[in-house]
Amino acid sequence: MRAASMGFVLPALLAGQIALAQTTQPQDAPAQTTPAVEDFKPASSNQGGKPYPQVNSERRARFRIVAPGAQSVKVPEWGGITLTKGEDGAWVGTTRPLDEGFHYYRINIDGAEVPDPGSKFYFGAGRSGSAIEIPAQDEEFYTVKDVPHGQLRQSLYFSKSTNTTRRCFVYTPPDYDKDNNARYPVLYLQHGAFEDETGWGNQGRANLIMDNLIAAGKSRPFLIVMDNGGNNFAGGPRRGTPPAPGGGAGGRPRFDFSAFAKIMTEELIPFIDANFRTIADQPHRAMAGLSMGGAQTRQIALANLDKFSGIGLFSGGSIAANDPALADPAAFKQKVKVLFVSYGSKENTATAKANHEALEKLGIENTYYESPNTAHEWQTWRRSLYQFAPRLFQD
Amino acid sequence: MRAASMGFVLPALLAGQIALAQTTQPQDAPAQTTPAVEDFKPASSNQGGKPYPQVNSERRARFRIVAPGAQSVKVPEWGGITLTKGEDGAWVGTTRPLDEGFHYYRINIDGAEVPDPGSKFYFGAGRSGSAIEIPAQDEEFYTVKDVPHGQLRQSLYFSKSTNTTRRCFVYTPPDYDKDNNARYPVLYLQHGAFEDETGWGNQGRANLIMDNLIAAGKSRPFLIVMDNGGNNFAGGPRRGTPPAPGGGAGGRPRFDFSAFAKIMTEELIPFIDANFRTIADQPHRAMAGLSMGGAQTRQIALANLDKFSGIGLFSGGSIAANDPALADPAAFKQKVKVLFVSYGSKENTATAKANHEALEKLGIENTYYESPNTAHEWQTWRRSLYQFAPRLFQD
Repeated sequence: MRAASMGFVLPALLAGQIALAQTTQPQDAPAQTTPAVEDFKPASSNQGGKPYPQVNSERRARFRIVAPGAQSVKVPEWGGITLTKGEDGAWVGTTRPLDEGFHYYRINIDGAEVPDPGSKFYFGAGRSGSAIEIPAQDEEFYTVKDVPHGQLRQSLYFSKSTNTTRRCFVYTPPDYDKDNNARYPVLYLQHGAFEDETGWGNQGRANLIMDNLIAAGKSRPFLIVMDNGGNNFAGGPRRGTPPAPGGGAGGRPRFDFSAFAKIMTEELIPFIDANFRTIADQPHRAMAGLSMGGAQTRQIALANLDKFSGIGLFSGGSIAANDPALADPAAFKQKVKVLFVSYGSKENTATAKANHEALEKLGIENTYYESPNTAHEWQTWRRSLYQFAPRLFQD
Repeated sequence: MRAASMGFVLPALLAGQIALAQTTQPQDAPAQTTPAVEDFKPASSNQGGKPYPQVNSERRARFRIVAPGAQSVKVPEWGGITLTKGEDGAWVGTTRPLDEGFHYYRINIDGAEVPDPGSKFYFGAGRSGSAIEIPAQDEEFYTVKDVPHGQLRQSLYFSKSTNTTRRCFVYTPPDYDKDNNARYPVLYLQHGAFEDETGWGNQGRANLIMDNLIAAGKSRPFLIVMDNGGNNFAGGPRRGTPPAPGGGAGGRPRFDFSAFAKIMTEELIPFIDANFRTIADQPHRAMAGLSMGGAQTRQIALANLDKFSGIGLFSGGSIAANDPALADPAAFKQKVKVLFVSYGSKENTATAKANHEALEKLGIENTYYESPNTAHEWQTWRRSLYQFAPRLFQD
């Protein structure tokens, strides 16, 4: 089993909002200025039966850690939540109302940064750690329902270029095993920086989003392949420098994703086409990703338009009208059937919007989607997949 | 996604060795009486790039936690390892030589019990937590090799009896998708108490064990279904009471696995047979489990010999000659083609050995396997699967 290789310390990198798959929310209010409504319940992201952390109807989170001998217990996120010790030896702290969706967080006990033992653990920010799910008004699209379910398949394959056995996850739609003659399009879907191939299945809920879309007749059934895009900044800017929003055009720094591009085009795609019943051609293959995964999609898909007809950039840049890939707009239009760019409304969206309009003026149909009231976080990307998937493979 | 429901605190339960899937090793030596050999390397069970915990050539583990403000840092396992603070604010502690294989452990920082942030996390002892892999002389049988790999498929199904969507994992062998006419036998394989359906894939490495066995021509390819057996002690003895080794015969207390038995026989088996290419008959269906999963296997398989022809009990009891299921030895022999019982050599094995011999005398062929130098831990169970699988489905 190949583990993600991320041998560096994170805190120094946590400043770059775009480069990281998820960051803390802007500190737009001090932690809890008014008393919280006392209707807290265990978060749905908790380990089974664990009573804390909790969430209330205002979307505040409350943390509780038993640490009778500790001098200081904090949650560094959301501007820093200082927990207070009770007579029972438990430390408790409450946040201000948080954004809807999924947020990574840590506990700091006397200087030790550890996961909250009440939470399930998710790989993000370069570590397996705790997170809290804040209920969202639109959460139904990613919840488990009694509909036909696809499978999430852990698949191992040998990669010559890296001389390792690599792991990917493949979502197969509910009917995949019903008709052995049916073949399916494929979406290659990438995580963000400091995340790994488990992100879209665990925190992204890609399988549940697709199950629900397919059951509602809103999306064509297709495969989703989730591989490990690494965090390879070699040859690009220094570690943690955000990609230029708008892409690498105009001499701005670029990430170097060449090693992953080679894996994707020469190893992963052939492995998937050989081992799953795919429709193995350009019109039935798409690539998308979030944050760094969007930057990878932009770079790899534009350089391989003979392989991909759908492109999705979720909080991961957009395509400028002067991009070399658009030198021949007619040729681009013929190859790219779906071009989708999204951001959370709390992100810096000006460049993406301007690029969207510039491309429209060029006659290049493209979609700009903005997730309401969310930042550079998973709720933006869950919604992006939900918006993107129905547009794919409409031939 | 259904999470394991285990809403109780564990420490009070950690005393019962058989009832828990894994316990600490007997305190047969004080922690580090002689200096350790200084050839420590990061454990293979670490998160990618994390330098600690480490293991040396003597099979000692060394832990290191940065906690500059802490008063006390301990690892409660192995009799209790007290870490010492260095000038850099990091606490370090080293164990005595440990058994080969996989061991759960925790970190206690000023009274807070948390996972070691350097380790990957595994669900066991009622929580997702840290563990350390100690290299074993025979580890090759469960390592990743460049052989054809099967898939580990997360499958969701609706359970009427519990009105929930449940999750199971299904191992499909390497050639499963190559020939759509081929059908396969099925092994239902259960985790231990306070573990869940992820155990056999993550810490047990069942998929890698099978990939390697099949590549070597040592096992027939078959499916393995890993579901959540819960921790339902209702109606049985109080929580945490170990099952009587040797079974429930003779008025000794029994666990009540009736809810899981219903799921297994009325919901899970029909779901698997409807959605995978199984050979859906008694000769091609087996059940096995470790610890509590062995007790479940014993109870469910013996009560359903029309459904199972193979039985594997790994550190989970054995079958006494006076068991009601053996009232007609000839009928039992006709139905049960493989009966396999195993323990670690450091467990209490007397009853299992005596039962093995008593059954032989009854003319009932059965295998007793003892894992050398291991206790009630995963290395015993990995080896048990490796020994058990080649015996199955030899028709």
